[in-house]
Amino acid sequence: MRTVEWDPIHQAVQLIDQRQLPGNFTTVSFRDVPALAEAIRAMVVRGAPAIGVTAAFGMALGAYNSNAASVEGLRADLKASAGLLGAARPTAVNLAWALERMLAAAAMPVSSPDELRERMLRMAQQMADEDVETNRRMALIGAELIADGDTIIHHCNTGALAAVDWGTALGCIRMAHEQGKRVHVLVDETRPRLQGARLTAWELGRWGIPYEIITDNAAGYFLRSGQAQKVMFGADRVAANGDVANKIGTYMLALAAHANGVPVFAVMPASSIDLSLANGNCIPIEERDEAEVLDLQVNGQPAAPAGARARNPAFDITPHELLTALVTERGVVYPPFETNLPGIFQATKSRE
Amino acid sequence: MRTVEWDPIHQAVQLIDQRQLPGNFTTVSFRDVPALAEAIRAMVVRGAPAIGVTAAFGMALGAYNSNAASVEGLRADLKASAGLLGAARPTAVNLAWALERMLAAAAMPVSSPDELRERMLRMAQQMADEDVETNRRMALIGAELIADGDTIIHHCNTGALAAVDWGTALGCIRMAHEQGKRVHVLVDETRPRLQGARLTAWELGRWGIPYEIITDNAAGYFLRSGQAQKVMFGADRVAANGDVANKIGTYMLALAAHANGVPVFAVMPASSIDLSLANGNCIPIEERDEAEVLDLQVNGQPAAPAGARARNPAFDITPHELLTALVTERGVVYPPFETNLPGIFQATKSRE
Repeated sequence: MRTVEWDPIHQAVQLIDQRQLPGNFTTVSFRDVPALAEAIRAMVVRGAPAIGVTAAFGMALGAYNSNAASVEGLRADLKASAGLLGAARPTAVNLAWALERMLAAAAMPVSSPDELRERMLRMAQQMADEDVETNRRMALIGAELIADGDTIIHHCNTGALAAVDWGTALGCIRMAHEQGKRVHVLVDETRPRLQGARLTAWELGRWGIPYEIITDNAAGYFLRSGQAQKVMFGADRVAANGDVANKIGTYMLALAAHANGVPVFAVMPASSIDLSLANGNCIPIEERDEAEVLDLQVNGQPAAPAGARARNPAFDITPHELLTALVTERGVVYPPFETNLPGIFQATKSRE
Repeated sequence: MRTVEWDPIHQAVQLIDQRQLPGNFTTVSFRDVPALAEAIRAMVVRGAPAIGVTAAFGMALGAYNSNAASVEGLRADLKASAGLLGAARPTAVNLAWALERMLAAAAMPVSSPDELRERMLRMAQQMADEDVETNRRMALIGAELIADGDTIIHHCNTGALAAVDWGTALGCIRMAHEQGKRVHVLVDETRPRLQGARLTAWELGRWGIPYEIITDNAAGYFLRSGQAQKVMFGADRVAANGDVANKIGTYMLALAAHANGVPVFAVMPASSIDLSLANGNCIPIEERDEAEVLDLQVNGQPAAPAGARARNPAFDITPHELLTALVTERGVVYPPFETNLPGIFQATKSRE
């Protein structure tokens, strides 16, 4: 099944509850927009492409839940839905990108509220299908960068669970594996939410790709001792100069790879690229609840002393100087990113 | 009380069980050398200075447990004890250093086995007292490097618990605080054993020093955004060129600090300096049980999937290029370390 799907019987958005993995594979249905927005915030679903498509389905949900009898009334309700969904998480631009596409579709001429409702659902389903196809293309392109025998350090989760299917960086690794290349993954556990230990390890196990989990702080050891040939991760937002916002810890990983001459690839759909922002310092960084850091148990007891406080930035900025290339469904983008990143959009436009 | 003490009534070595902190403050007594060696391996006690002194008391324990009726027989038993204790952990040189001092004392002329037993205990107690004094001197010297208002990122635990008292890097921070400087500590939680979240946070709380816990992978975020003015950590072994072996994650932290122009100070007693090794690549790196990485629970369930494997190097090497200075009880050592490190030993020798 897909990470996010529309349930036509209950008119609900159905998500794999990623907080329960790998222990339990369960799905949850959301029947109204506020609950779905809260699910995005609470990371029932996470991963930049996945939350984009989830928000698109959220707009369909908003359309069907609206009692508006006029097209204009429905459009107003859809704007309110977009506001709720867009506020759920600030860093990944895919959320805003998906909502803008849905609002643009809603603004096109339409003859009745019901036709607009159907259009919203059709559009969300199209975006879900596009996401699968986009990620498959990205996987094919990125797999070319992986050599037979590579050990790859991977951060967070960028697999099927981070998108509708396939995923970004992990999709490339999976594709290389399916093409018969021998790959080995060192899985950053990815504190504090442990998306690596929980989700990436689970996906790799299902695909039969050999891996070992490491603490995030150990990546430097493996890079400096020549035990890894590539570093790959996704992106929540890319600025016009190629700076990448991604899961906390990506910056230190990229620094360690760069210091040891190991190539660093960030993999993302073009929808994660935000040419409106000059550089990474303009990207808003979400700071999440300190409980995510503090809620760790050792011997059945809290690891931290009672009353301890924590800081919990969920993302960091990796400056483009540390990146070997960006991998998108439109091709591999090498430096200088300032010219080559806009280039991939122009090239596509001129073909259209 | 001290981290490690001799219990004269039971002729036992008494340790604070650091695995139980911060939940429970308990002490455990060890009455024979194999049990004490296992306690060092299992990290009941940890921290380079602390395990050095523990091993010294272990030699006293070995002396009192030996039934040897001759000095030569007792010396043979002491060699066996040193072998057991020395094999417990490979990276920190303080363990080997302490055992060598004890064996050298055992080799000096002595009139009876009982006199040698007493000498072993006296020597261990002297080394414990020296450790406190050494660390207090280090703290005074290192506190000079801390400015009023500094936010300091600190890795692992280097406080009183890592030594007999005071500690190394954390001792400097505590001394600066006691001198009235306002300091704030960003505490790396230090996966996998969480010595930061468990022990450093607990010590800072007792001393009234403000702190916040962060995941290890977040240090780069705080350094790049200008929220930290210093980075400080300890050392398990320093090579002749200044390369530092320390708790896993130190290397990535030092890289991030160096990349952002933030001073990096490694703090250690001169006994952690191993001039016999040309550089950090000669330092043996302990790889510990993968269970330390995998035994993490989320929602009461294992974070990693069943059957997952892990790698668990316990230390890494920070190349000297990333270090602003080394802080020892003999003074602050600046680059070039190749000449200045032997210099601090020669300077002391010429005074003696």
